[in-house]
Amino acid sequence: MEFQNCLPIWDKLSKAQQDSILGSVVSRQITRGTVVHGGNTDCTGLLLVKSGQLRAYILSEEGREITIYRLFDRDVCLFSASCMLRSIQFDITIEAEKDASLWVIPAELYRKIMEESAPAANYTNEIMASRFSEVMWLVEQIMWKSMDRRVADFLLAESAIEGTARLSVTHEAIANHLGTHREVVTRMLRYLQGEGMVKLSRGVVELLDAKRLETLGRA
Amino acid sequence: MEFQNCLPIWDKLSKAQQDSILGSVVSRQITRGTVVHGGNTDCTGLLLVKSGQLRAYILSEEGREITIYRLFDRDVCLFSASCMLRSIQFDITIEAEKDASLWVIPAELYRKIMEESAPAANYTNEIMASRFSEVMWLVEQIMWKSMDRRVADFLLAESAIEGTARLSVTHEAIANHLGTHREVVTRMLRYLQGEGMVKLSRGVVELLDAKRLETLGRA
Repeated sequence: MEFQNCLPIWDKLSKAQQDSILGSVVSRQITRGTVVHGGNTDCTGLLLVKSGQLRAYILSEEGREITIYRLFDRDVCLFSASCMLRSIQFDITIEAEKDASLWVIPAELYRKIMEESAPAANYTNEIMASRFSEVMWLVEQIMWKSMDRRVADFLLAESAIEGTARLSVTHEAIANHLGTHREVVTRMLRYLQGEGMVKLSRGVVELLDAKRLETLGRA
Repeated sequence: MEFQNCLPIWDKLSKAQQDSILGSVVSRQITRGTVVHGGNTDCTGLLLVKSGQLRAYILSEEGREITIYRLFDRDVCLFSASCMLRSIQFDITIEAEKDASLWVIPAELYRKIMEESAPAANYTNEIMASRFSEVMWLVEQIMWKSMDRRVADFLLAESAIEGTARLSVTHEAIANHLGTHREVVTRMLRYLQGEGMVKLSRGVVELLDAKRLETLGRA
Protein backbone atom coordinates (compact mmCIF):
# COMPACT_ATOMS: atom_id res chain seq x y z
CA MET A 1 0.00 0.00 0.00
CA GLU A 2 1.35 3.38 -1.00
CA PHE A 3 1.39 6.26 1.45
CA GLN A 4 -0.33 8.52 -1.09
CA ASN A 5 -3.37 6.24 -1.27
CA CYS A 6 -3.93 6.70 2.44
CA LEU A 7 -4.23 10.45 2.32
CA PRO A 8 -7.46 11.20 0.45
CA ILE A 9 -6.47 14.80 -0.19
CA TRP A 10 -3.14 13.90 -1.79
CA ASP A 11 -4.21 14.96 -5.29
CA LYS A 12 -5.46 18.29 -4.00
CA LEU A 13 -2.08 19.30 -2.62
CA SER A 14 0.44 21.31 -4.60
CA LYS A 15 3.59 19.66 -5.91
CA ALA A 16 5.63 21.58 -3.31
CA GLN A 17 3.36 20.37 -0.49
CA GLN A 18 3.53 16.78 -1.73
CA ASP A 19 7.31 16.98 -1.92
CA SER A 20 7.67 18.37 1.59
CA ILE A 21 5.49 15.56 2.94
CA LEU A 22 7.37 12.88 1.02
CA GLY A 23 10.64 14.36 2.28
CA SER A 24 9.67 14.14 5.93
CA VAL A 25 7.13 11.32 6.35
CA VAL A 26 8.53 8.51 8.47
CA SER A 27 7.44 4.89 8.47
CA ARG A 28 7.27 3.32 11.91
CA GLN A 29 6.63 -0.22 13.12
CA ILE A 30 5.35 -0.57 16.67
CA THR A 31 4.56 -3.59 18.77
CA ARG A 32 1.41 -4.21 20.74
CA GLY A 33 1.32 -2.17 23.94
CA THR A 34 3.51 0.68 22.66
CA VAL A 35 2.27 4.10 23.71
CA VAL A 36 2.68 6.35 20.67
CA HIS A 37 1.18 9.46 22.19
CA GLY A 38 0.45 10.74 25.67
CA GLY A 39 2.35 11.66 28.79
CA ASN A 40 5.88 12.53 27.76
CA THR A 41 5.56 11.74 24.08
CA ASP A 42 3.68 14.87 23.18
CA CYS A 43 3.02 15.98 19.64
CA THR A 44 4.18 12.91 17.87
CA GLY A 45 2.84 14.14 14.56
CA LEU A 46 -0.08 13.14 12.40
CA LEU A 47 -0.33 9.36 12.39
CA LEU A 48 -1.71 7.37 9.48
CA VAL A 49 -2.40 3.75 10.24
CA LYS A 50 -1.05 1.50 7.49
CA SER A 51 -2.07 -1.64 9.35
CA GLY A 52 -2.77 -2.72 12.90
CA GLN A 53 -5.04 -1.37 15.59
CA LEU A 54 -4.68 1.56 18.00
CA ARG A 55 -6.73 2.64 20.97
CA ALA A 56 -7.25 6.21 22.16
CA TYR A 57 -8.18 6.50 25.81
CA ILE A 58 -8.16 8.86 28.75
CA LEU A 59 -6.79 8.17 32.20
CA SER A 60 -8.11 9.29 35.56
CA GLU A 61 -5.76 10.40 38.32
CA GLU A 62 -6.36 7.04 39.97
CA GLY A 63 -5.27 5.22 36.81
CA ARG A 64 -8.73 4.23 35.56
CA GLU A 65 -9.12 4.16 31.78
CA ILE A 66 -11.87 4.58 29.26
CA THR A 67 -11.59 4.02 25.52
CA ILE A 68 -12.55 7.06 23.49
CA TYR A 69 -12.16 5.55 20.05
CA ARG A 70 -10.13 3.04 18.09
CA LEU A 71 -8.14 3.33 14.90
CA PHE A 72 -7.88 0.74 12.16
CA ASP A 73 -6.26 0.44 8.72
CA ARG A 74 -6.15 3.77 6.87
CA ASP A 75 -7.44 5.75 9.85
CA VAL A 76 -5.83 9.04 10.74
CA CYS A 77 -4.97 9.93 14.30
CA LEU A 78 -5.43 13.65 14.62
CA PHE A 79 -4.88 14.03 18.32
CA SER A 80 -1.39 12.64 18.18
CA ALA A 81 -0.69 16.01 16.55
CA SER A 82 -2.88 17.96 18.93
CA CYS A 83 -0.21 20.65 19.33
CA MET A 84 -1.14 21.92 15.90
CA LEU A 85 -4.57 22.97 17.14
CA ARG A 86 -4.44 25.63 19.85
CA SER A 87 -7.91 24.83 21.11
CA ILE A 88 -7.30 21.17 21.98
CA GLN A 89 -7.07 21.10 25.73
CA PHE A 90 -7.23 17.54 26.85
CA ASP A 91 -4.84 14.66 27.17
CA ILE A 92 -5.41 11.49 25.29
CA THR A 93 -3.21 8.40 25.26
CA ILE A 94 -2.75 6.42 22.05
CA GLU A 95 -1.59 2.86 22.41
CA ALA A 96 -1.12 0.00 19.97
CA GLU A 97 -3.71 -2.71 20.64
CA LYS A 98 -2.05 -4.86 18.01
CA ASP A 99 1.31 -4.64 16.27
CA ALA A 100 0.98 -1.74 13.87
CA SER A 101 2.63 -0.07 10.98
CA LEU A 102 2.31 3.71 10.80
CA TRP A 103 3.28 6.70 8.74
CA VAL A 104 4.08 9.81 10.72
CA ILE A 105 3.87 13.30 9.25
CA PRO A 106 5.56 15.87 11.51
CA ALA A 107 2.93 18.01 13.24
CA GLU A 108 4.63 21.27 12.35
CA LEU A 109 4.62 20.42 8.64
CA TYR A 110 0.98 19.35 8.64
CA ARG A 111 0.00 22.52 10.47
CA LYS A 112 1.76 24.61 7.85
CA ILE A 113 0.01 22.77 5.02
CA MET A 114 -3.37 23.16 6.75
CA GLU A 115 -2.80 26.90 6.96
CA GLU A 116 -2.19 27.17 3.23
CA SER A 117 -4.57 24.55 1.90
CA ALA A 118 -8.33 24.66 2.22
CA PRO A 119 -8.67 20.98 1.21
CA ALA A 120 -6.22 19.93 3.97
CA ALA A 121 -8.02 22.07 6.55
CA ASN A 122 -11.43 20.72 5.51
CA TYR A 123 -10.14 17.17 5.57
CA THR A 124 -8.91 17.77 9.12
CA ASN A 125 -12.33 19.15 9.95
CA GLU A 126 -14.02 15.99 8.74
CA ILE A 127 -11.68 13.77 10.77
CA MET A 128 -12.32 15.81 13.89
CA ALA A 129 -16.08 15.80 13.28
CA SER A 130 -15.97 12.05 12.96
CA ARG A 131 -14.05 11.63 16.25
CA PHE A 132 -16.40 14.14 17.84
CA SER A 133 -19.33 11.95 16.81
CA GLU A 134 -17.67 8.94 18.42
CA VAL A 135 -17.19 10.83 21.68
CA MET A 136 -20.82 12.01 21.63
CA TRP A 137 -21.89 8.41 21.12
CA LEU A 138 -19.75 7.54 24.15
CA VAL A 139 -21.37 10.28 26.26
CA GLU A 140 -24.79 8.87 25.37
CA GLN A 141 -23.64 5.37 26.27
CA ILE A 142 -22.26 6.45 29.63
CA MET A 143 -25.24 8.61 30.46
CA TRP A 144 -28.19 6.56 29.41
CA LYS A 145 -27.06 2.95 29.14
CA SER A 146 -26.67 0.49 31.95
CA MET A 147 -23.40 -1.42 32.21
CA ASP A 148 -24.84 -4.80 31.16
CA ARG A 149 -25.92 -3.31 27.83
CA ARG A 150 -22.54 -1.62 27.37
CA VAL A 151 -20.75 -4.92 28.01
CA ALA A 152 -23.03 -6.63 25.46
CA ASP A 153 -22.29 -3.88 22.91
CA PHE A 154 -18.58 -4.11 23.54
CA LEU A 155 -18.50 -7.89 23.08
CA LEU A 156 -20.39 -7.63 19.79
CA ALA A 157 -18.10 -4.86 18.50
CA GLU A 158 -15.02 -6.82 19.52
CA SER A 159 -16.36 -9.95 17.85
CA ALA A 160 -16.94 -7.99 14.63
CA ILE A 161 -13.40 -6.55 14.74
CA GLU A 162 -11.76 -9.91 15.40
CA GLY A 163 -14.03 -11.89 13.13
CA THR A 164 -14.63 -14.57 15.74
CA ALA A 165 -17.11 -15.42 18.47
CA ARG A 166 -14.27 -16.58 20.73
CA LEU A 167 -12.61 -13.50 22.21
CA SER A 168 -9.26 -13.57 23.98
CA VAL A 169 -9.86 -10.73 26.37
CA THR A 170 -9.51 -10.33 30.13
CA HIS A 171 -12.17 -8.81 32.37
CA GLU A 172 -9.61 -6.15 33.27
CA ALA A 173 -9.20 -5.15 29.61
CA ILE A 174 -12.97 -4.86 29.15
CA ALA A 175 -13.16 -2.72 32.30
CA ASN A 176 -10.45 -0.42 30.90
CA HIS A 177 -12.38 0.00 27.67
CA LEU A 178 -15.61 0.84 29.43
CA GLY A 179 -14.18 2.94 32.25
CA THR A 180 -15.35 0.73 35.07
CA HIS A 181 -13.90 -1.72 37.58
CA ARG A 182 -12.95 -5.31 36.85
CA GLU A 183 -15.37 -6.58 39.50
CA VAL A 184 -18.28 -4.88 37.73
CA VAL A 185 -17.37 -6.51 34.41
CA THR A 186 -17.00 -9.92 36.05
CA ARG A 187 -20.45 -9.56 37.59
CA MET A 188 -21.98 -8.57 34.23
CA LEU A 189 -20.26 -11.42 32.38
CA ARG A 190 -21.46 -13.93 34.95
CA TYR A 191 -24.96 -12.59 34.52
CA LEU A 192 -24.65 -12.98 30.73
CA GLN A 193 -23.29 -16.50 31.25
CA GLY A 194 -26.21 -17.35 33.52
CA GLU A 195 -28.53 -16.20 30.75
CA GLY A 196 -26.73 -18.44 28.27
CA MET A 197 -25.48 -15.59 26.11
CA VAL A 198 -21.75 -16.15 26.71
CA LYS A 199 -19.44 -18.83 28.01
CA LEU A 200 -16.48 -17.86 30.20
CA SER A 201 -13.14 -19.58 30.54
CA ARG A 202 -9.69 -18.34 31.55
CA GLY A 203 -8.86 -15.25 29.43
CA VAL A 204 -11.65 -16.10 27.00
CA VAL A 205 -15.20 -14.89 26.48
CA GLU A 206 -17.16 -16.89 23.95
CA LEU A 207 -20.30 -15.42 22.45
CA LEU A 208 -23.03 -18.08 22.34
CA ASP A 209 -26.06 -16.03 21.38
CA ALA A 210 -25.19 -12.90 19.40
CA LYS A 211 -28.84 -12.22 18.64
CA ARG A 212 -29.84 -11.92 22.29
CA LEU A 213 -26.75 -9.83 23.00
CA GLU A 214 -27.84 -7.48 20.22
CA THR A 215 -31.32 -7.22 21.64
CA LEU A 216 -29.86 -6.44 25.05
CA GLY A 217 -27.39 -3.90 23.60
CA ARG A 218 -30.13 -2.12 21.71
CA ALA A 219 -32.55 -2.01 24.65
CA MET B 1 -21.38 45.84 17.96
CA GLU B 2 -20.77 45.19 14.30
CA PHE B 3 -21.22 41.78 12.78
CA GLN B 4 -17.74 41.95 11.25
CA ASN B 5 -16.07 42.28 14.67
CA CYS B 6 -17.60 39.00 15.72
CA LEU B 7 -16.06 36.97 12.95
CA PRO B 8 -12.31 36.93 13.64
CA ILE B 9 -11.48 35.82 10.11
CA TRP B 10 -13.43 38.63 8.44
CA ASP B 11 -10.29 40.41 7.19
CA LYS B 12 -8.96 37.20 5.71
CA LEU B 13 -11.97 36.72 3.45
CA SER B 14 -12.08 37.99 -0.10
CA LYS B 15 -14.28 40.95 -0.98
CA ALA B 16 -16.62 38.58 -2.83
CA GLN B 17 -16.91 36.30 0.20
CA GLN B 18 -17.54 39.26 2.50
CA ASP B 19 -20.22 40.56 0.16
CA SER B 20 -21.98 37.23 -0.07
CA ILE B 21 -22.05 36.96 3.72
CA LEU B 22 -23.29 40.53 4.16
CA GLY B 23 -25.96 39.84 1.55
CA SER B 24 -27.36 36.84 3.35
CA VAL B 25 -26.63 37.18 7.08
CA VAL B 26 -29.81 37.52 9.10
CA SER B 27 -30.19 39.13 12.50
CA ARG B 28 -32.54 37.27 14.82
CA GLN B 29 -33.91 38.02 18.28
CA ILE B 30 -35.06 35.06 20.32
CA THR B 31 -36.64 34.81 23.71
CA ARG B 32 -35.60 32.57 26.55
CA GLY B 33 -36.64 28.96 26.00
CA THR B 34 -36.62 29.14 22.19
CA VAL B 35 -35.13 26.06 20.55
CA VAL B 36 -32.98 27.32 17.69
CA HIS B 37 -31.65 23.97 16.59
CA GLY B 38 -32.65 20.35 17.02
CA GLY B 39 -35.54 18.08 16.21
CA ASN B 40 -37.31 19.57 13.23
CA THR B 41 -35.28 22.75 12.92
CA ASP B 42 -32.29 21.08 11.31
CA CYS B 43 -29.44 23.00 9.78
CA THR B 44 -30.36 26.43 10.96
CA GLY B 45 -27.06 27.87 9.78
CA LEU B 46 -23.96 29.11 11.53
CA LEU B 47 -25.05 31.09 14.58
CA LEU B 48 -23.03 33.95 16.03
CA VAL B 49 -24.15 35.07 19.45
CA LYS B 50 -24.37 38.87 19.62
CA SER B 51 -25.69 38.79 23.16
CA GLY B 52 -27.52 36.41 25.46
CA GLN B 53 -26.88 32.86 26.47
CA LEU B 54 -27.53 29.53 24.73
CA ARG B 55 -27.29 25.98 25.93
CA ALA B 56 -26.36 22.94 23.84
CA TYR B 57 -27.62 19.64 25.21
CA ILE B 58 -28.47 16.11 24.27
CA LEU B 59 -31.67 14.28 25.06
CA SER B 60 -32.20 10.65 25.94
CA GLU B 61 -35.15 8.68 24.61
CA GLU B 62 -36.74 9.04 28.03
CA GLY B 63 -36.41 12.82 27.86
CA ARG B 64 -33.42 13.19 30.19
CA GLU B 65 -31.04 16.01 29.33
CA ILE B 66 -27.38 16.79 29.81
CA THR B 67 -25.71 20.08 28.97
CA ILE B 68 -22.81 19.66 26.56
CA TYR B 69 -21.66 23.29 26.49
CA ARG B 70 -22.95 26.83 26.69
CA LEU B 71 -22.58 29.80 24.38
CA PHE B 72 -22.10 33.40 25.41
CA ASP B 73 -21.47 36.76 23.72
CA ARG B 74 -19.40 36.41 20.53
CA ASP B 75 -19.45 32.62 20.63
CA VAL B 76 -20.07 30.68 17.46
CA CYS B 77 -22.43 27.76 17.33
CA LEU B 78 -21.00 25.34 14.83
CA PHE B 79 -23.38 22.45 15.32
CA SER B 80 -26.40 24.48 14.39
CA ALA B 81 -24.87 24.17 10.91
CA SER B 82 -23.89 20.54 11.35
CA CYS B 83 -25.26 19.66 7.91
CA MET B 84 -22.21 21.31 6.40
CA LEU B 85 -19.96 18.61 7.90
CA ARG B 86 -20.71 15.15 6.57
CA SER B 87 -19.03 13.44 9.53
CA ILE B 88 -21.20 14.96 12.25
CA GLN B 89 -23.51 12.17 13.30
CA PHE B 90 -25.21 13.19 16.47
CA ASP B 91 -28.15 15.31 17.45
CA ILE B 92 -27.73 18.28 19.66
CA THR B 93 -30.41 20.70 20.79
CA ILE B 94 -29.62 24.40 21.10
CA GLU B 95 -31.90 26.45 23.29
CA ALA B 96 -31.82 30.05 24.51
CA GLU B 97 -31.16 30.13 28.26
CA LYS B 98 -31.66 33.89 28.19
CA ASP B 99 -33.14 36.21 25.62
CA ALA B 100 -30.57 36.38 22.88
CA SER B 101 -29.62 38.27 19.78
CA LEU B 102 -28.03 36.25 17.00
CA TRP B 103 -26.62 36.53 13.54
CA VAL B 104 -27.29 33.61 11.26
CA ILE B 105 -25.13 32.76 8.26
CA PRO B 106 -26.84 30.20 6.00
CA ALA B 107 -25.09 26.83 6.34
CA GLU B 108 -24.78 26.33 2.60
CA LEU B 109 -22.99 29.65 2.16
CA TYR B 110 -20.60 29.01 5.04
CA ARG B 111 -19.81 25.56 3.69
CA LYS B 112 -18.98 27.05 0.31
CA ILE B 113 -16.68 29.64 1.87
CA MET B 114 -14.96 26.97 3.98
CA GLU B 115 -14.28 24.98 0.84
CA GLU B 116 -12.54 27.90 -0.81
CA SER B 117 -10.87 29.56 2.13
CA ALA B 118 -8.17 27.96 4.27
CA PRO B 119 -8.57 30.63 7.00
CA ALA B 120 -12.32 29.90 7.25
CA ALA B 121 -11.70 26.14 7.37
CA ASN B 122 -9.00 26.53 10.03
CA TYR B 123 -11.19 28.84 12.06
CA THR B 124 -13.92 26.20 11.96
CA ASN B 125 -11.33 23.66 13.07
CA GLU B 126 -10.43 25.73 16.10
CA ILE B 127 -14.08 26.15 17.10
CA MET B 128 -14.67 22.43 16.80
CA ALA B 129 -11.47 21.64 18.75
CA SER B 130 -12.62 23.96 21.48
CA ARG B 131 -16.07 22.29 21.72
CA PHE B 132 -14.36 18.92 21.56
CA SER B 133 -12.29 19.91 24.60
CA GLU B 134 -15.45 20.86 26.46
CA VAL B 135 -17.01 17.49 25.71
CA MET B 136 -13.85 15.67 26.82
CA TRP B 137 -13.96 17.67 30.06
CA LEU B 138 -17.56 16.51 30.43
CA VAL B 139 -16.62 12.87 29.86
CA GLU B 140 -14.01 13.16 32.60
CA GLN B 141 -16.54 14.75 34.92
CA ILE B 142 -19.13 12.04 34.31
CA MET B 143 -16.62 9.22 34.57
CA TRP B 144 -14.46 10.16 37.49
CA LYS B 145 -16.36 12.72 39.57
CA SER B 146 -19.06 12.02 42.10
CA MET B 147 -22.32 13.93 41.80
CA ASP B 148 -21.77 16.10 44.91
CA ARG B 149 -18.60 17.52 43.37
CA ARG B 150 -20.32 18.07 40.03
CA VAL B 151 -23.16 19.96 41.76
CA ALA B 152 -20.57 22.09 43.61
CA ASP B 153 -18.77 22.83 40.31
CA PHE B 154 -22.02 23.70 38.58
CA LEU B 155 -23.09 26.12 41.32
CA LEU B 156 -19.72 27.90 41.19
CA ALA B 157 -19.80 28.15 37.38
CA GLU B 158 -23.37 29.44 37.47
CA SER B 159 -22.46 32.00 40.13
CA ALA B 160 -19.55 33.23 37.99
CA ILE B 161 -21.81 33.53 34.92
CA GLU B 162 -24.55 35.39 36.78
CA GLY B 163 -22.21 37.48 38.91
CA THR B 164 -24.14 36.70 42.09
CA ALA B 165 -24.07 34.21 44.95
CA ARG B 166 -27.88 34.06 44.90
CA LEU B 167 -28.94 31.79 42.06
CA SER B 168 -32.49 31.58 40.76
CA VAL B 169 -32.44 28.00 39.63
CA THR B 170 -34.65 25.00 40.23
CA HIS B 171 -33.41 21.56 41.23
CA GLU B 172 -34.95 20.28 38.00
CA ALA B 173 -32.87 22.71 35.92
CA ILE B 174 -29.66 21.63 37.68
CA ALA B 175 -30.57 17.99 37.08
CA ASN B 176 -31.06 18.72 33.35
CA HIS B 177 -27.65 20.35 33.15
CA LEU B 178 -25.90 17.46 34.84
CA GLY B 179 -27.85 14.62 33.26
CA THR B 180 -29.31 13.26 36.46
CA HIS B 181 -32.64 13.12 38.29
CA ARG B 182 -34.16 15.96 40.31
CA GLU B 183 -34.23 13.80 43.44
CA VAL B 184 -30.48 13.26 43.23
CA VAL B 185 -29.85 17.00 43.00
CA THR B 186 -32.19 17.71 45.89
CA ARG B 187 -30.32 15.18 48.03
CA MET B 188 -26.94 16.72 47.13
CA LEU B 189 -28.15 20.26 47.79
CA ARG B 190 -29.53 19.25 51.18
CA TYR B 191 -26.18 17.68 51.99
CA LEU B 192 -24.41 20.92 50.98
CA GLN B 193 -26.91 22.89 53.07
CA GLY B 194 -26.26 20.64 56.07
CA GLU B 195 -22.56 21.39 55.66
CA GLY B 196 -23.29 25.13 55.63
CA MET B 197 -22.07 25.64 52.08
CA VAL B 198 -25.42 26.71 50.58
CA LYS B 199 -28.80 27.93 51.74
CA LEU B 200 -31.93 26.69 49.98
CA SER B 201 -35.22 28.46 49.53
CA ARG B 202 -37.99 28.19 46.93
CA GLY B 203 -36.39 28.40 43.46
CA VAL B 204 -33.20 29.83 44.96
CA VAL B 205 -29.81 28.39 45.87
CA GLU B 206 -27.59 30.78 47.78
CA LEU B 207 -23.86 30.10 47.96
CA LEU B 208 -22.64 30.71 51.50
CA ASP B 209 -19.13 29.32 51.34
CA ALA B 210 -17.62 29.44 47.85
CA LYS B 211 -14.20 28.43 49.14
CA ARG B 212 -15.39 25.14 50.57
CA LEU B 213 -17.45 24.48 47.44
CA GLU B 214 -14.26 24.99 45.41
CA THR B 215 -12.34 22.59 47.59
CA LEU B 216 -15.10 20.03 47.17
CA GLY B 217 -15.32 20.60 43.40
CA ARG B 218 -11.58 20.16 43.01
CA ALA B 219 -11.38 17.04 45.17
